[in-house]
Amino acid sequence: MRESSFAGCELCDSADEDTLWHDDFCRVILVADPDYAGYCRVILNRHVREMTDLDASRRERLMRVVFAVEAAVRRVMRPDKINLASFGNMVPHLHWHVIPRFADDRHFPNSIWGEPTRAGAVRNTSREAIAAALKELLAG
Amino acid sequence: MRESSFAGCELCDSADEDTLWHDDFCRVILVADPDYAGYCRVILNRHVREMTDLDASRRERLMRVVFAVEAAVRRVMRPDKINLASFGNMVPHLHWHVIPRFADDRHFPNSIWGEPTRAGAVRNTSREAIAAALKELLAG
Repeated sequence: MRESSFAGCELCDSADEDTLWHDDFCRVILVADPDYAGYCRVILNRHVREMTDLDASRRERLMRVVFAVEAAVRRVMRPDKINLASFGNMVPHLHWHVIPRFADDRHFPNSIWGEPTRAGAVRNTSREAIAAALKELLAG
Repeated sequence: MRESSFAGCELCDSADEDTLWHDDFCRVILVADPDYAGYCRVILNRHVREMTDLDASRRERLMRVVFAVEAAVRRVMRPDKINLASFGNMVPHLHWHVIPRFADDRHFPNSIWGEPTRAGAVRNTSREAIAAALKELLAG
């Protein structure tokens, strides 16, 4: 269990994550979604519910990582669009979804939480390329 | 039409908006959604596609407004959760959704773009109270 963890919270106590980057504040994981190669999540390492429960400097720190993930995924995958979202309705522990979207993907132009629009093109990406881009973008 | 507008973009050339706050960089509007009282959008005044197409200081400026909307809506409505999202699959002009969520709303715990889970409780809010809170939070 991590520091400031909350019993029963799957993001406080998570085991099977494919971590692309982390520091003591947050981590970036690659989501294993067959329809959405390159789908990443940025997860705060503490059990905090809302962005405005963080102070302004910590909000900026978390968004800096979210935007670095966006930049890394764009560089590697050249998606038609990036989707960003922070919901937490089921797991109220701050995490951001960063999803590369393509015009031929399973839900486009809907959100990935909406109605599918087609079977969806199968895509692959290189986790190593995304991890390397992230490391470079977040250096220093 | 606004500066840096894009022909046919409904967010470049929008008329029927209920604007709660604005400056020369962005505007906050109240969305007329009968299921989601207090649902706001933060819309950049320029036609820009992705957050990482803005420089870091402009990204921070836009997020500062998004988080002020979150804080204002929390103060006025005390929601069970805040949902934040930036998609732009249909209208690729930067805008953020800020949605107060309640356990008895139409889609909870799904996203509002997912499957409805019930008829949804009807709620009202005060646009004047949200606008006043925003003005205070964004002063200075």
